[in-house]
Amino acid sequence: MLIVVALGGNALLRRGEPMTAGNQRANIVRAAAVLAKLVGEGHSIVVTHGNGPQVGLLALQAATTSDGRTFPLDVLGAESAGMIGYVIEQELGNLLKEKLFATLLTQVKVDPHDPAFAHPTKPIGPVYDQATARGLAEERGWQIAPDGDKWRRVVPSPKPLEILEASVISFLVEHGVIVICTGGGGVPVIARDDGSLCGVEAVIDKDLASSLLGRQLRADMLLMLTDVDAVYIDYGTATARALRRVTPREISERNFPAGSMGPKVRAAIEFAKAMGKPAVIGKLDDAIKIVKGECGTWFEAGAPPHP
Amino acid sequence: MLIVVALGGNALLRRGEPMTAGNQRANIVRAAAVLAKLVGEGHSIVVTHGNGPQVGLLALQAATTSDGRTFPLDVLGAESAGMIGYVIEQELGNLLKEKLFATLLTQVKVDPHDPAFAHPTKPIGPVYDQATARGLAEERGWQIAPDGDKWRRVVPSPKPLEILEASVISFLVEHGVIVICTGGGGVPVIARDDGSLCGVEAVIDKDLASSLLGRQLRADMLLMLTDVDAVYIDYGTATARALRRVTPREISERNFPAGSMGPKVRAAIEFAKAMGKPAVIGKLDDAIKIVKGECGTWFEAGAPPHP
Repeated sequence: MLIVVALGGNALLRRGEPMTAGNQRANIVRAAAVLAKLVGEGHSIVVTHGNGPQVGLLALQAATTSDGRTFPLDVLGAESAGMIGYVIEQELGNLLKEKLFATLLTQVKVDPHDPAFAHPTKPIGPVYDQATARGLAEERGWQIAPDGDKWRRVVPSPKPLEILEASVISFLVEHGVIVICTGGGGVPVIARDDGSLCGVEAVIDKDLASSLLGRQLRADMLLMLTDVDAVYIDYGTATARALRRVTPREISERNFPAGSMGPKVRAAIEFAKAMGKPAVIGKLDDAIKIVKGECGTWFEAGAPPHP
Repeated sequence: MLIVVALGGNALLRRGEPMTAGNQRANIVRAAAVLAKLVGEGHSIVVTHGNGPQVGLLALQAATTSDGRTFPLDVLGAESAGMIGYVIEQELGNLLKEKLFATLLTQVKVDPHDPAFAHPTKPIGPVYDQATARGLAEERGWQIAPDGDKWRRVVPSPKPLEILEASVISFLVEHGVIVICTGGGGVPVIARDDGSLCGVEAVIDKDLASSLLGRQLRADMLLMLTDVDAVYIDYGTATARALRRVTPREISERNFPAGSMGPKVRAAIEFAKAMGKPAVIGKLDDAIKIVKGECGTWFEAGAPPHP
């Protein structure tokens, strides 16, 4: 089975942990063990990952040089994909020594008229208290928004329309190469009138990009791994209830709450509807059980392998 | 003809120019026009590039965050490969819209006992006057060395032993994909006793890595493009003389002066000797003429196509 595995920011960096090279590697080691098990079960995998904490940190770092060296978000996104992809390739390679790997820079086409450019929603970088966030917003022209009880910088997150390197990725996958790509949702680009490409200041949601990648690769499953074991109704309240299976009718009719699970749920619905194959959301450490249908939240057109 | 084209740091950023995103892109646009012409002449190309100014800047930026977030040079090298590779892929893709591209993270094996670890020689980052460089060395534990009449930080530059993704690169090249790889000389890694890989604090010379890549891919030519039109004897003096052709006997017997051309000359000799095929050093804008044997310095076992 070909599985697109999306590693959430929270699977790569535990909530509240500072974004150090050491923390990042420790979490990637943990994720690599899970990915290696999926390969051990006979699956082909394509690995994608988030970059929220990383791209935000790179933006902060770039802003500290005083001579106008601010780097645009497309370039910072490409940096973060190299930074994270490298460690994933190395640590997963250490567990699967006989496998070939390719960590690929990925450009993702977006619509220059996407309304997201006027309404930034994607949080990047560290969390701040409200006063600090307001000060930074003033000083640097950031947009900010609440994230739980803290505040973060937010940037535009346009809808991904096409993974431009999909045919190369597909070709490598068909030949047994484990591909790491679409890091941080891929580098957002728009096409000019003459068809030439140009990067834009945005960060694409990596789950929506992974869903698109899964459809372009005609994958058998989209597996979104995070630090929560399922999608919850009334999450964080006394009536919280984990969803185990979302049926085709519910996919069409139910209104899922927005919030941090919002893009994952949208990504799952888009994949399941288009492909008639399962999209699943769950906890990193549960990955093997999730794929077997034993846990996580399944979005699917058909029945799960186990009831 | 399969050509490994190595873009020098000075072909990507003119001497003295600050390392801004805009300057970097402007220079890459210029380089992409040259690369597109090579493809237009019917050649297959694999593109490599330096990262000296970029990785040094990233290291400076990473050092500005105050909470121990210094990133090791292997991770910074991977970042720089994403950052530069992205812009090369995009700008070259804009000129060659029908071609497929892959910008690949590249790990390069080095010897943990390489003497370079005790004797750092590779300059990275900006130039400083001597007093500033000494202050930074004191404050940050850098090693510094003169670079022309200025000073720069220097880091270990071990000899590249194996491009670990070579078989994937080769496979893509055989299928017509233009590969951008071995950015900044590739990410330096060592093998532990159990065979697992581990990044090290170093920056590999991109010409030596490109020479190795050329040999592993069995390329027909190694083309190193910089901002000087040839290798000179007595460069910068009244008796300066450009070398046009370096014969097999000279390759074995002549002592070429060290200095900034040193690694290029070593890279050329290694490629020409091992492959019996030409390695050529010259100016970016002369690339088409260089390949035809009309200019640049040719290192070769046989005769150039034109006398």
